[in-house]
Amino acid sequence: MTNTTRTEIIAVGTEILLGQIANTNAQWMSEQLAINGINTYYHTVVGDNLDRIVEALEIAANRSDVIIINGGLGPTQDDVSREAFQQLSKMSIVEESKSLEKIKAYYRKQGQQMTSNNLRQARVFADSLVLDNQVGMAPGNLVEYNGKKWIFLPGVPKEMKQIFTDEVIPYLKKMNGEMIIQSTVLRFSGIGESALEDKLEELITNQDNPTIAPLAQKDGVTIRLTAKAEKKEEARHLIQDVKERILSQVGKYYYGEDDDTVEGTVLDLLRTNNITIGAAESLTGGAFSDKLVSLEGASTAFKGAVVCYDEEVKRNVLHVTSDTLANHGTVSSTCAIELAKHTASMLNSTIGISFTGVAGPGEVERKEVGTVYIGIYDQRTGYEYVESCFFQGDRAQIRYRSVLQGYNLLLHYLKNS
Amino acid sequence: MTNTTRTEIIAVGTEILLGQIANTNAQWMSEQLAINGINTYYHTVVGDNLDRIVEALEIAANRSDVIIINGGLGPTQDDVSREAFQQLSKMSIVEESKSLEKIKAYYRKQGQQMTSNNLRQARVFADSLVLDNQVGMAPGNLVEYNGKKWIFLPGVPKEMKQIFTDEVIPYLKKMNGEMIIQSTVLRFSGIGESALEDKLEELITNQDNPTIAPLAQKDGVTIRLTAKAEKKEEARHLIQDVKERILSQVGKYYYGEDDDTVEGTVLDLLRTNNITIGAAESLTGGAFSDKLVSLEGASTAFKGAVVCYDEEVKRNVLHVTSDTLANHGTVSSTCAIELAKHTASMLNSTIGISFTGVAGPGEVERKEVGTVYIGIYDQRTGYEYVESCFFQGDRAQIRYRSVLQGYNLLLHYLKNS
Repeated sequence: MTNTTRTEIIAVGTEILLGQIANTNAQWMSEQLAINGINTYYHTVVGDNLDRIVEALEIAANRSDVIIINGGLGPTQDDVSREAFQQLSKMSIVEESKSLEKIKAYYRKQGQQMTSNNLRQARVFADSLVLDNQVGMAPGNLVEYNGKKWIFLPGVPKEMKQIFTDEVIPYLKKMNGEMIIQSTVLRFSGIGESALEDKLEELITNQDNPTIAPLAQKDGVTIRLTAKAEKKEEARHLIQDVKERILSQVGKYYYGEDDDTVEGTVLDLLRTNNITIGAAESLTGGAFSDKLVSLEGASTAFKGAVVCYDEEVKRNVLHVTSDTLANHGTVSSTCAIELAKHTASMLNSTIGISFTGVAGPGEVERKEVGTVYIGIYDQRTGYEYVESCFFQGDRAQIRYRSVLQGYNLLLHYLKNS
Repeated sequence: MTNTTRTEIIAVGTEILLGQIANTNAQWMSEQLAINGINTYYHTVVGDNLDRIVEALEIAANRSDVIIINGGLGPTQDDVSREAFQQLSKMSIVEESKSLEKIKAYYRKQGQQMTSNNLRQARVFADSLVLDNQVGMAPGNLVEYNGKKWIFLPGVPKEMKQIFTDEVIPYLKKMNGEMIIQSTVLRFSGIGESALEDKLEELITNQDNPTIAPLAQKDGVTIRLTAKAEKKEEARHLIQDVKERILSQVGKYYYGEDDDTVEGTVLDLLRTNNITIGAAESLTGGAFSDKLVSLEGASTAFKGAVVCYDEEVKRNVLHVTSDTLANHGTVSSTCAIELAKHTASMLNSTIGISFTGVAGPGEVERKEVGTVYIGIYDQRTGYEYVESCFFQGDRAQIRYRSVLQGYNLLLHYLKNS
């Protein structure tokens, strides 16, 4: 690959210089560029100040080939990225009719009064490439000037990511010639990074195409395989070969690829088996259900849940027995199994899952913070199981880990039943 | 305050340009500087490449007064921050005896063979200020050159933070004179950034102490007020005065300051009024409850919820009438109000809130994606209210905005009832 294109990312936003947020946009873009074989040479952050943005653009013009300006395209007076580039390039700015129409339609639909500054967002450079923003208002913009590419993207992460993925990456790949980089992420749950790396040590050391990069993520461990080849078929073949060697050793922890998630795999398994699930959530407070409902098509397998945060709800709605409450308490395996059973019966779901425990900061029923019971019940067979867990961390971490462990248990159960 | 010192942070590290990590060091330093009234004007990230670091230092020399170089002080061959500055300044580099001794002692203690490159870390510029590293090996270094301050800090966050806190901040504060900076964030909901700015335009334009900086956040709009004064009392007074002028115009959208959240304010209002809440969540799928349970002390006011994702659960568990389902459907204001009423009664909560709508991607009951009804019912008075909403965006955004709007409605209801 003969790619020596120098890419620079200029983030515009005083909030970054005040330390209110980290420049995670630049991180994400750099990662995407690296995956596609494009090198980032510089990150710059400059505040919402016209003169300083102009200076930053001048510096970039002298040292970089592709310059990405991120932010400063919004409706307010301090959004001046376009004005800064205009000062440098003397190019004219026009209102783009499609975006203009979109902004007006939005306010019509909301029945809200539109202030005129909102229309500022529809401005692009004349004779440039407009990059469609499918998530928000301000379109991206790609301008060729003095032999350099200038790419303007909104600062809102979701909007930036959509435009970057759909428009910028394909454009840059085409520009750089079609050297094939193929990348696949293998996903694992129920095993730590060092244990996984240990099992694959020889393979990782001796392999350089594809490269094998393990990474601990918040919700498990991934391995990224990245192959380079002249042709797509060849790159795919290289990856497939190493993937098989990896799975022959750690296949039992594997659940999917790329954008697959544990909850998505669980949903697929439920749908494949034509069964449904319902939940009883105490300390998780709806977070388990929320993850499932965030997936399209959840309705085919998810019945619903009872968030039984209060003891009264456990007793009166989910009919945990007085005996259980008196002798074992709400934070107990007995309570967990009753919750799983009764929620399955009440919501008429094949499987019931329950979460009860102590998220902190204080103890409950003399049970230590981090004590969690997860129950699973299958109405078809009467199968019941309780996992007794102990999670480290603060309230948010304990709740997050409980949900994750719930999905891991379901994954394991559904794969093996 | 006569502080116009321009500070720039140059992070040296290819791992940042590859997107492996975000530049959180720069965020942290900028935040610390801002708290202490020192303005950061630029962040730059450059890779471990001698020529490009030299160029970055030259750019900084032309535009900044205090230049912080973070990273590139370690033992390996690609740690070349000192060499780059030497090329610029022609200053000589010496081994610092105290650090040298520390490194040798460390390896003696470990009983490990020390490779000679470890001693590279003890190098500092001649006649400069050595900044003691109490956590690791490489000391920080502060150099005066051509009227500018050049501060070298290790890239390891823990080491950087210790030296920054103990050495750099006190030095810079002394340099700038002891000026007081006071900063407060005002939080608003139910109004957009441009509408807010529109209402406050005159104030924003004419006000420079405190400065007024509006910012659109994911969950609302904030205004940061930053005042500078000789004394804390004076800075506070300046902020209080402008805050009052702002609230006199947009007070009805205001809900709190600094780290306050809408859901936290709602929880406080529930507790103050000694009342409880329960939820019926269809499209939001537990996300409303999850937000409340994420708060410590939610148990005093939150009873629980029924996630009634499936129509069967709406009918059989929450007893939405056949008439409503047949004539209005699940996505209707009639259904929303029944859900709110019945969940309050079932969970024995003072207030019931309900969410039903179409998160997409497909239509439901011929209702367009984005159509959402939020119901509120108060058992004490029989008060009932339904908000008919239309949200733009994808599934995640529609669900997120529904939850947010639910909290906004509760906030408004609780503030005014």
